[in-house]
Amino acid sequence: MLTPTQLTFLNHQRVARLATADKAGVPHIVPICYVVEGASVYIALDAKPKRVAPLRLKRVRNIAENAEVSVLVDRYDEDWTTLGWVRLDGPAKLIVEGQEHADALRLLRQRYVQYESMLPDDAVVIAVRVHRVASWGDLSAAL
Amino acid sequence: MLTPTQLTFLNHQRVARLATADKAGVPHIVPICYVVEGASVYIALDAKPKRVAPLRLKRVRNIAENAEVSVLVDRYDEDWTTLGWVRLDGPAKLIVEGQEHADALRLLRQRYVQYESMLPDDAVVIAVRVHRVASWGDLSAAL
Repeated sequence: MLTPTQLTFLNHQRVARLATADKAGVPHIVPICYVVEGASVYIALDAKPKRVAPLRLKRVRNIAENAEVSVLVDRYDEDWTTLGWVRLDGPAKLIVEGQEHADALRLLRQRYVQYESMLPDDAVVIAVRVHRVASWGDLSAAL
Repeated sequence: MLTPTQLTFLNHQRVARLATADKAGVPHIVPICYVVEGASVYIALDAKPKRVAPLRLKRVRNIAENAEVSVLVDRYDEDWTTLGWVRLDGPAKLIVEGQEHADALRLLRQRYVQYESMLPDDAVVIAVRVHRVASWGDLSAAL
């Protein structure tokens, strides 16, 4: 589903943005750390300070009401000939246990050394099943 | 509505992300250049290459169906103690003429020198009326 260039870009970038929407269709965005594996994007409800408990987060309540989400990975530069992005859309689900959950946490810890002290084994994982991929611009400019 | 720290952060950052959703509530994100003025965020449908005409863009069709949008301005750093973001939510409308339209184009050209050659006088402007502001983290870390 992903081209080698898209996958390299996704693995190279460090931050993405997750859009969810509630049942009334009101959108909401947060920055996310992420890892792409196969046809899924994994995001953890990590131990960065939050104002509410993980399962009360707006992103989680939105996914419970409306599973469709959009993940955008983009790169900005003042040279606008080198801009680029990849967008991954599809339904999300929460995963709290099992092999996929353990694998997602392992991949996130490998990718972000910061997670060594901030990602407990019982962290809730959002798995986005990528049904649609779009990309734009020069994905190889920054690699 | 915005604190001085939030406004300084918004003016310092150069790229944001806009989430819209269609009438079925399916969210969509794009990276945007933007300017904040008063209680509005202005975004132009500029002359960067697009795959479709400006008024056929998914963001525009979504706003026509569902005016509510979310704009996120965030800063990533590998030192996670310095992360921060500001989110601006509210209804969006398209502006194609008049004083507010001219003022928005002028402000965007002042902020982005790149627009000197890429922002025609008849560019469509998306105006987001900011009804809700949220922020998180250390907004002054990168200033």
